Amino acid sequence: VSLTEVEQRYLAGQRHGRLATVTPCGAPQVKPVGFSYNTELGTIDIAGFQMGNSAKYRNIATNPAVAFVVDDVLFEAFEGVRFIEIRGVAEAAVVDHQDSDHLASEIIRIHPRRVIALNIDPHNPGFATRDIATAGDRPGVT
Amino acid sequence: VSLTEVEQRYLAGQRHGRLATVTPCGAPQVKPVGFSYNTELGTIDIAGFQMGNSAKYRNIATNPAVAFVVDDVLFEAFEGVRFIEIRGVAEAAVVDHQDSDHLASEIIRIHPRRVIALNIDPHNPGFATRDIATAGDRPGVT
Repeated sequence: VSLTEVEQRYLAGQRHGRLATVTPCGAPQVKPVGFSYNTELGTIDIAGFQMGNSAKYRNIATNPAVAFVVDDVLFEAFEGVRFIEIRGVAEAAVVDHQDSDHLASEIIRIHPRRVIALNIDPHNPGFATRDIATAGDRPGVT
Repeated sequence: VSLTEVEQRYLAGQRHGRLATVTPCGAPQVKPVGFSYNTELGTIDIAGFQMGNSAKYRNIATNPAVAFVVDDVLFEAFEGVRFIEIRGVAEAAVVDHQDSDHLASEIIRIHPRRVIALNIDPHNPGFATRDIATAGDRPGVT
């Protein structure tokens, strides 16, 4: 309900993204992560092997602002670069991974607030930026 | 002079990385970028089409702390995931791109301060973290 069909389709075709968080000192960190789009909640759900013990999990407790990017390169030119960056508010959540016992039950759940995309929509090439309106249910919006 | 031979070799085999910066409001941003390792200075040099006008270029003026990650997946398991994250201090620099007129002359130059790697060294699999000592020539170290 937060991402468009075109955005969801692009994400579904990619396996990994990179998540940026901010330490209590104000410095960024960035890591490759697996992810899935939660169609029910409209969130990006990020799981990991040791998520509950990770620095990124601790970072979102002090600064819930995060940025997540998925990208690929079809060919080496500006027109061949595709990405979608999702900025939003992260929430620490706990889930039951029924299909894997390798992943920690703690996950980072991103509530999208702003989407910046490049060449994601074949019908509208180039940059596309939009804010995602909220029902006011999530404070701390960046 | 800042990265090891093993680290440099891994970077040389990859074409793109992702750069995380922090806005004046304290929220992270992350974008796919091209990069090169500057063997003379020991820096990561990041160029782009419109670098001088980009948000990341403005961000480093107010907060020079950045994180840069390069990663790939050899196979879908913890042992198959490789990445190198370089945290450091970013400097706005100007260069002459002799081999390309598509790139802006402004670049972001990262002075590495901390390296976190996973499965980069075939002789030492797993995580490897180290700080990079400086000669005290660059203030603002994170």
